[in-house]
Amino acid sequence: MSRPAVVLLSGGLDSATVAAIAQRDGFEPHALSFRYGQRHSAELGAAMRVVDQLGIADHKVVPVDLRAFGGSALTDDIEVPKGRDPAEMVGEIPITYVPARNTIFLSFAMAWAEVLRADDIFIGVNALDYSGYPDCRPEFIDAFQAMARLGTKAGVEGGELTIHAPLIDLSKADIIRLGTSLGVDYGITVSCYDPDAGGTACGECDACVLRRNGFAQADVADPTPYRD
Amino acid sequence: MSRPAVVLLSGGLDSATVAAIAQRDGFEPHALSFRYGQRHSAELGAAMRVVDQLGIADHKVVPVDLRAFGGSALTDDIEVPKGRDPAEMVGEIPITYVPARNTIFLSFAMAWAEVLRADDIFIGVNALDYSGYPDCRPEFIDAFQAMARLGTKAGVEGGELTIHAPLIDLSKADIIRLGTSLGVDYGITVSCYDPDAGGTACGECDACVLRRNGFAQADVADPTPYRD
Repeated sequence: MSRPAVVLLSGGLDSATVAAIAQRDGFEPHALSFRYGQRHSAELGAAMRVVDQLGIADHKVVPVDLRAFGGSALTDDIEVPKGRDPAEMVGEIPITYVPARNTIFLSFAMAWAEVLRADDIFIGVNALDYSGYPDCRPEFIDAFQAMARLGTKAGVEGGELTIHAPLIDLSKADIIRLGTSLGVDYGITVSCYDPDAGGTACGECDACVLRRNGFAQADVADPTPYRD
Repeated sequence: MSRPAVVLLSGGLDSATVAAIAQRDGFEPHALSFRYGQRHSAELGAAMRVVDQLGIADHKVVPVDLRAFGGSALTDDIEVPKGRDPAEMVGEIPITYVPARNTIFLSFAMAWAEVLRADDIFIGVNALDYSGYPDCRPEFIDAFQAMARLGTKAGVEGGELTIHAPLIDLSKADIIRLGTSLGVDYGITVSCYDPDAGGTACGECDACVLRRNGFAQADVADPTPYRD
C-alpha cells in the first residue's frame, strides 16, 4: 500500500518532476498549491494539468495573501528582470524572491501532513535556486524539518516527519533528464515569471533562461512555447 | 528611536500582555492577526480594541484558511470540551489544537518582519499551553528561530532574527499581574473558545477555566463578562 505524502506543486518544471519522483518511490501524492497573488497565476492552471497527467487523486489550492506584506517582484508591481545571463544570477538575492515563501508553503504542508497522518513532505527546491534564494538552501530544509518534528502532534508522539528535497543537488539539465525518464510532460508546465494572459512564457526572464539552458544541456527537445 | 517588531495579536489575554511588554521594552509593535476560519472570530474584534487601547499604529489582519485541512475543534464542527479541571488538561494534546497553527502564524510574521527590516517577533505562548500544544514548547520556539535565521535575506546578510516568547515560563496569574502593572485592560480581551454571537465568554471551556483561575490566583478582579 502506498504511503501518503504532501507534495508542494507550483505547476513549474521542478515540482512536476518531484511529484513523479514521489510516485516512483511508492508514495501517494496529495498535491498542495497556493493562490498567492502571484503575477503568474498561469502556474495554477499548469498545476491542475500536472495533477491530471500524473493521476493524482487529491489536490488542494489554498489562498494565501502574500501581497499583504509586499517586497517582491512576483507579488508587487516591480519589473521582472529580463535577458540576464545565468552567471549574473549567482550570489545575490533576486528581486523575484518572495519573503518567507517556502517557510509559509512548508508550514501549510506540515498542517495538512498532520491531518493526513503523513510523515513525508516533498518540495522541489534545487541547487540553481539556492544560489539566490535563502529558503532553498539545504541547511534551511534541514532546520525546517527539525522545527517541524518539534511543532507537531506526530512529532511529540514519536513520528519522524521528513522533508524530501530530491532535486536539491541537481542541475536543471539533470532534473529534465530525470523527469523525462519518469514520463513527465514538460509541455504542460509553466516556469515563466512573466507569462502573457494565455500562459505563454516570455522566454527572457531568469526562470525562462534557466529552463531553456536546461533543455539544451540535457539534449532534450524543449516543448515550451515561448513568445519571443 | 524605537525598533520595529512584529507582534502576533490574537485578541486574547496573553497576546495583549505581550504587546504591552514589547512597548515597555522599547519596540514599536506592528500587530499581526489572522482570520482563519476560527469559531471565535470575536477574537478579532478584541484584537482591534487592544490595538486602540495600546496606541499601536500598524495592524494587519491576514486571511488564512486553516479550515482547508480540518483536524481541530477550533476550525471544525467538533464540540469544545467544557467544565474540565485544569488537572485534566495536562499531558494530552487537546482537541482545540489547530495543526501547525503557530508555525503558520510565525511564518507570516517572518515574512512581514523581512519586509519591515525588523529583527524581532513577539508571540504569547506560555507554560500552560505547552503542556498540551506541541508548538508552544520552548524547544519549538528555539527551532523556529534557527530555521528563520537561515530562511531569510536578513539572516543570510548577518541579521539576527529573534523570536521573543516573554510569557513562556509564566503562569496565567503571573501574566495577569504583569499585564495589570503595564496597564493592560483585560476587560477588552477575549480568551473563550466558544463565545456567543455578541462575544460573551462561556465561562466553562478550558480557556475560560484557566483565565478565571488566573485572576483568582493573581488576586486581581476579573473584568470578563461570562454568560454562566
